[in-house]
Amino acid sequence: MIKVGIIGATGYAGAEIVRILQGHPDAEVVWYGSRSYIDEKYSKVYGNFFKLVDARCMDDNMDELAKEVDVIFTATPQGLCASLIKEEILEKVRVIDLSADFRLKDVSVYEEWYGIEHKAPQYIEEAVYGLCEINREDIKNARIVANPGCYTTCSILTAYPLIKEGLIDPDTLIVDALSGVSGAGRGAKVANLYCEVNESAKPYGVAVHRHTPEIEEQLSYAAGKEMMINFTPHLVPMNRGILATEYASLVKKDGELPTAADVRAAYEKYYKDEYFIRILEDGVYPETRWVEGSNFVDIGFKIDPRTSRIIMMGTIDNLVKGAAGQAVQNMNIMFGLPENQGLQMVPLFP
Amino acid sequence: MIKVGIIGATGYAGAEIVRILQGHPDAEVVWYGSRSYIDEKYSKVYGNFFKLVDARCMDDNMDELAKEVDVIFTATPQGLCASLIKEEILEKVRVIDLSADFRLKDVSVYEEWYGIEHKAPQYIEEAVYGLCEINREDIKNARIVANPGCYTTCSILTAYPLIKEGLIDPDTLIVDALSGVSGAGRGAKVANLYCEVNESAKPYGVAVHRHTPEIEEQLSYAAGKEMMINFTPHLVPMNRGILATEYASLVKKDGELPTAADVRAAYEKYYKDEYFIRILEDGVYPETRWVEGSNFVDIGFKIDPRTSRIIMMGTIDNLVKGAAGQAVQNMNIMFGLPENQGLQMVPLFP
Amino acid sequence: MIKVGIIGATGYAGAEIVRILQGHPDAEVVWYGSRSYIDEKYSKVYGNFFKLVDARCMDDNMDELAKEVDVIFTATPQGLCASLIKEEILEKVRVIDLSADFRLKDVSVYEEWYGIEHKAPQYIEEAVYGLCEINREDIKNARIVANPGCYTTCSILTAYPLIKEGLIDPDTLIVDALSGVSGAGRGAKVANLYCEVNESAKPYGVAVHRHTPEIEEQLSYAAGKEMMINFTPHLVPMNRGILATEYASLVKKDGELPTAADVRAAYEKYYKDEYFIRILEDGVYPETRWVEGSNFVDIGFKIDPRTSRIIMMGTIDNLVKGAAGQAVQNMNIMFGLPENQGLQMVPLFP
Amino acid sequence: MIKVGIIGATGYAGAEIVRILQGHPDAEVVWYGSRSYIDEKYSKVYGNFFKLVDARCMDDNMDELAKEVDVIFTATPQGLCASLIKEEILEKVRVIDLSADFRLKDVSVYEEWYGIEHKAPQYIEEAVYGLCEINREDIKNARIVANPGCYTTCSILTAYPLIKEGLIDPDTLIVDALSGVSGAGRGAKVANLYCEVNESAKPYGVAVHRHTPEIEEQLSYAAGKEMMINFTPHLVPMNRGILATEYASLVKKDGELPTAADVRAAYEKYYKDEYFIRILEDGVYPETRWVEGSNFVDIGFKIDPRTSRIIMMGTIDNLVKGAAGQAVQNMNIMFGLPENQGLQMVPLFP
Repeated sequence: MIKVGIIGATGYAGAEIVRILQGHPDAEVVWYGSRSYIDEKYSKVYGNFFKLVDARCMDDNMDELAKEVDVIFTATPQGLCASLIKEEILEKVRVIDLSADFRLKDVSVYEEWYGIEHKAPQYIEEAVYGLCEINREDIKNARIVANPGCYTTCSILTAYPLIKEGLIDPDTLIVDALSGVSGAGRGAKVANLYCEVNESAKPYGVAVHRHTPEIEEQLSYAAGKEMMINFTPHLVPMNRGILATEYASLVKKDGELPTAADVRAAYEKYYKDEYFIRILEDGVYPETRWVEGSNFVDIGFKIDPRTSRIIMMGTIDNLVKGAAGQAVQNMNIMFGLPENQGLQMVPLFP
Repeated sequence: MIKVGIIGATGYAGAEIVRILQGHPDAEVVWYGSRSYIDEKYSKVYGNFFKLVDARCMDDNMDELAKEVDVIFTATPQGLCASLIKEEILEKVRVIDLSADFRLKDVSVYEEWYGIEHKAPQYIEEAVYGLCEINREDIKNARIVANPGCYTTCSILTAYPLIKEGLIDPDTLIVDALSGVSGAGRGAKVANLYCEVNESAKPYGVAVHRHTPEIEEQLSYAAGKEMMINFTPHLVPMNRGILATEYASLVKKDGELPTAADVRAAYEKYYKDEYFIRILEDGVYPETRWVEGSNFVDIGFKIDPRTSRIIMMGTIDNLVKGAAGQAVQNMNIMFGLPENQGLQMVPLFP
Repeated sequence: MIKVGIIGATGYAGAEIVRILQGHPDAEVVWYGSRSYIDEKYSKVYGNFFKLVDARCMDDNMDELAKEVDVIFTATPQGLCASLIKEEILEKVRVIDLSADFRLKDVSVYEEWYGIEHKAPQYIEEAVYGLCEINREDIKNARIVANPGCYTTCSILTAYPLIKEGLIDPDTLIVDALSGVSGAGRGAKVANLYCEVNESAKPYGVAVHRHTPEIEEQLSYAAGKEMMINFTPHLVPMNRGILATEYASLVKKDGELPTAADVRAAYEKYYKDEYFIRILEDGVYPETRWVEGSNFVDIGFKIDPRTSRIIMMGTIDNLVKGAAGQAVQNMNIMFGLPENQGLQMVPLFP
Repeated sequence: MIKVGIIGATGYAGAEIVRILQGHPDAEVVWYGSRSYIDEKYSKVYGNFFKLVDARCMDDNMDELAKEVDVIFTATPQGLCASLIKEEILEKVRVIDLSADFRLKDVSVYEEWYGIEHKAPQYIEEAVYGLCEINREDIKNARIVANPGCYTTCSILTAYPLIKEGLIDPDTLIVDALSGVSGAGRGAKVANLYCEVNESAKPYGVAVHRHTPEIEEQLSYAAGKEMMINFTPHLVPMNRGILATEYASLVKKDGELPTAADVRAAYEKYYKDEYFIRILEDGVYPETRWVEGSNFVDIGFKIDPRTSRIIMMGTIDNLVKGAAGQAVQNMNIMFGLPENQGLQMVPLFP
């Protein structure tokens, strides 16, 4: 039984790790870290766990924690994980960081987009970017896994095969994405009050959102060259879900545009054995409701011969594949378990 | 492995049975009955099952079905199950009916409130009312289980111990209840369109809702005398969830009103070993979000010494404990499985 | 042109006063008071007023304000109005207080339910309870109008005629009410975040909600004797709207229960000339969507001969008739304008 | 007083015309046409009009109607207006058609995208495309005004000045848009049920949506050459509102990209005197909540120097500026009234 500690267990992502691990046969949470709720019963903070979780919240004491658990999930604001990590901890325990601290390989890019100094740049190199379907092999032995962002996971996986196979021109990629409100976290802010969000849709972080360089870095690896994209996130009134609609110009081969079959073949090449990635049938486009509560990524596409562009669309549940679910998937890989262990939740509808 | 057939598999309750049984280790659906979608892939109707369910929808052929399965769930409109049921079927297979056909023991009450003739009154007597926590023993050997209604399950369980123990006056009971929209089913009606329901709350079926006699009959057994209640359902803009707020005058004993401890003791007497019933701590009231997606019933209460009344409050997920979950719980009881087998889903929040 | 000052202009009720007065031909807002946003452009706080309101937020300086305006609306937390009010102000300006400070005639009841000391009890006696349809005459010359609470307005108006006419037994009155989330105000609290409220319904303040004594006091006047009720508010996921479902035992006359015609006659006696009160046709029950954005009160009822009770149902928009709209209606009465001046907004649907 | 007849008065757009004209000082509805509800009281279909509209629904008899009114609004499915229109009618009455029948100048494009034969192609030429801010002069004397689509209005107005001024490359324009559910109309379809739409976001009509050629035609006029775009609509769970996020490559002048000031100057050149168009301040992006219930168009933009693209964002209320409001604005222009007469509704928030 893998012993799990969570730092930031009372945020939405932390609570989702708890929910998922309740159904995981090989792991159990033994440390519910939450600075804000120390000594309070966890089930007082999240009533869904009443009679299921009896524990109380603990401090975010990473040294102590390292002695007691096999893996630590840090579901905390940017900067915290980097400020706590050190050799003594990594010698004892493996870390899956849900923040952005170890996602970007170029520390100056991190510091520019996040506006904070990186406290542990010495670990950036060894940290593995935990996009399971792409980096599975490296994750196995990683001491630090940088769990990808929610927009990022969806955006990258949706475009990856087509970029890798050279079917689209990387310089034309535009990612327009929608997110449910849980992505904004549980902080008490006026902007996230029910009445402010309900019955409205809005763009935000236009051309400056922090997931941009993360998407760019990973897709650049696939493209084999540096690429820059436009990424526009929008907030829409729903609890969960990310939908990425991506546009790119198709690359002609021998004067011909790729066909739908070519595109499908590219997706199949990379994803046909992936349990969590579902390439939808022709003419079917993803909807967030069909993945809610699950670790699935649904992907559809449409070629527009009029403009020679392709529209790629992907959906995930931001708290599952976009956070806690992928974190558990990473844990499964790191500990040699079947990758979908404890992650076979059927999407909840309606 | 229990072989399961579902008649009405493409309604919301039917689809919820499918979802739950996907995670059940001892049962599998082998017949997805749906008149409206015969020969269509089930996962075309419900995209959440893409890559999880490969089957196509079948006709509602109960005779054929009876040969192939161990248990049939009928998740169909009132009257259908009664019109199909017969000895040849009951000799081969057990039936869990999610409609109201076998819930009321007095056929004239059924015909009055539902406005249709009962086609199989000869089976009313033997059918067992499948409120698991109350009728567990009778369910074990039942050939026909009448799975309770959603409002009913919540309303009865919330008041049952206090009526049984004589703590409240049955003639003063008023049940005011809220329901999410999935309770209205998947039929294409203007009244259930998004824009008609969203941003609004409304009462309906005031003093004439069909769950009224069902609540009354069951609580009358507990009261040891016939009782009549007021029951007012309301539609509120959410997918799932029922909240019943119930009012009754407390009965004095030796000139003293019952205390909170007395009330709690009554609840514990009947529910303390029940996995699915959670009696909340003092001062905590149920919220539908804490049971969403699960088979739990959360119950809280408050005594008002000013008016000598008690306010009892209960919540369930209408599609789980109010329909498919309780149906599976009944199946578990009927087949000698642990009662919570396949039903340990943690409530999904947010 | 009536000059209007608002203290608390950046709360939801304050902003609704601004919205309504934008369309009022005889009044204009000249002071947008808001401690939290001093010197900021009002339209930065509420983007709907961009290009419509050019003013900046001002301090809550009541002395200064009294010199510049004809009427002050205080849309502030409990206690603030009472702490600022004084003779020098009341000599210059009329005050419509949207808080609870002057609603209850018994200062000890106020202090008990609100848990704060009343700073200006000397004005309680002269303050007029601004439920326009009931106290119209007294409002005309009032210096201080205590604008009723949202639940209160709806609950009282729905039951008033039947109590006044002795058709129902006051001691049996139970008010079960639902509210949209804007009633909770714009404060940044976790409990009011989108994800906490969405897809859930919950009771709160059970048997202790502060609107209880307010309802009781006003209905006691109608009953001609002191009465106590049960009042249970619930939060449901929508922006606006209150729905009160009220239960009471009908009083027999000469051995006969009142008929629907009797009940209708009672409502007509008091409301038939009221522009804002709409008594619905038989069999029609109120829905919050039909009053959204307007100052209407919709009322319906149903007699249940089985239990000899009546179910009365009323709806309002909590921010309009439950706050800002009624406040403007009070202003109209105080300044001799047609009562529905500037208040003829048609409900917005969908 | 302008006498107004509405064909299709019980659809959402029709009902919104009724709502707006209730507050219009110079127009009154005298004919509530609705095939589905003939002889029923209009306020039975839309309870918000109870006590405000006493009329009953009438047949869609355009000949009869033409004798009784000054202007007819046709808020009906594609094809109906074209099938009814004829010289005898146009001699007597002016027509504002909210369907797509007269929006496209090339009848073959209409027939291709809409899949139906055009029954009155002889009127296409004279019909004026009623995008008020662009075609004001032509609208004045038009007999037939083709009221623009909802997505179209928002998409065109957001990009128009930049295309007209040559600041962006028309061939790179991508329009990614979100819509509330009222845009789908009031037809009883499973896809628009509350539970199907709530808690989900989805793209639809990808690369084939019918508003595409309409946007292209109008923007082509501005570009001075034919252009083709990608347009992807998405359904998000809210009643009202359209948000268009548009991407295009900026065109360098003398080797320099246009600045934000250049872009702002272009918008101001065309819109600075427009009552209904609000160009937001730098760094402010439109949100649908700020225009809900009003005829405003809010527009913001952001230049991304990294990719040399601009992101333009616009919002409208689909039922107001996207349908009924613009129709009334067209009526005002046609009848020589101030353009914002009866249209000064302040956006409703929250």
